[in-house]
Amino acid sequence: MTTTQPAAVRRGRPGYDREQLLQVCVEVFNQHGYDATSMGKLAEHLGITKSAIYHHVSSKEELLELSLNRALDSLEAEYDAVHARPLPAVERLELVLRGSVRVLVEQMPYVTLLLRVRGNSEVEITALQRRRRFTRQVGELIAQAQDDGDIRTDISAVAAPRLLMGMVNSMVDWYRPTGIGGPEEVADTVAKIALDGLRAP
Amino acid sequence: MTTTQPAAVRRGRPGYDREQLLQVCVEVFNQHGYDATSMGKLAEHLGITKSAIYHHVSSKEELLELSLNRALDSLEAEYDAVHARPLPAVERLELVLRGSVRVLVEQMPYVTLLLRVRGNSEVEITALQRRRRFTRQVGELIAQAQDDGDIRTDISAVAAPRLLMGMVNSMVDWYRPTGIGGPEEVADTVAKIALDGLRAP
Repeated sequence: MTTTQPAAVRRGRPGYDREQLLQVCVEVFNQHGYDATSMGKLAEHLGITKSAIYHHVSSKEELLELSLNRALDSLEAEYDAVHARPLPAVERLELVLRGSVRVLVEQMPYVTLLLRVRGNSEVEITALQRRRRFTRQVGELIAQAQDDGDIRTDISAVAAPRLLMGMVNSMVDWYRPTGIGGPEEVADTVAKIALDGLRAP
Repeated sequence: MTTTQPAAVRRGRPGYDREQLLQVCVEVFNQHGYDATSMGKLAEHLGITKSAIYHHVSSKEELLELSLNRALDSLEAEYDAVHARPLPAVERLELVLRGSVRVLVEQMPYVTLLLRVRGNSEVEITALQRRRRFTRQVGELIAQAQDDGDIRTDISAVAAPRLLMGMVNSMVDWYRPTGIGGPEEVADTVAKIALDGLRAP
């Protein structure tokens, strides 16, 4: 929130609050690309005027920032909740992986936008840094679990966290709520592959 | 190759043969997005005229098709080579995963372009179909290895091949030849995670 106007004034036209506005805008960004989307195009999709959008946000970039924060705040909240628990690193790693699957499914449009960010502005650079920090934290859990003797030491601790997050993040390209199983089922498959592999015991 | 002109005529200006032209064009597509790249922009990056590009190809879409075929032909060649070998499905699965890591590293710009295709034209739809067929073939190897008793049956055979390919494909976002280890080292990590998981034996 970068505005201090009262909520009643912030509303554009009846039918959109700030949350609903963001939901539409993130879909338009994902469909046409953020850079190729003008405020005019957003207004057209929303069926309101550009100035009605400016009642909610100060710029297109603020819409981007709000969208990226939505995904990153959720991911970081998952990590923080798990980090606080008195569990071995290997168990925290599994919980973080399951949590990231859950966030991806619940916030799919926001995570999709996040994964396309390439660092073209301050907002994008900050988002990339937060995304990299999350991957680094996954790497630290792996390293700690290696020290504990719970995770094999004959794998690259640089490549492994990136491969694991790549496995989870690929879901934006193929996960659909029907036909594949719910998020808990996919989280199970992710956790089983990551920790124990596909091979039959 | 959609032209039958002799090679000498196909060359634009001294300095580019068709292969080198493609190498530059795929980088420009990846940097600016295929849709946002005009033939004029390609000519500018190449330092030649548009008509010099038309000595090599008939359209921008032909450049896209040649680029996507480069990635897909390589992937399919890996699959075909492995498929012909008299090995248990679980071993063929491992070889296909290792082969796809190798193709990704060797053809990274072409694979990067392939992974961004969303089906906006016939060429893109065909490429998506070929990409999906590859993933389906990985799924068939998993199913066969499950029948053989070599791969666990308590995982989703729909999600697993997509997660595995997602793990490999994520490399376009983070793999660099230095600092991470060579392709064989990353292929090792992929194969170990996929088959046996991270957990210490």
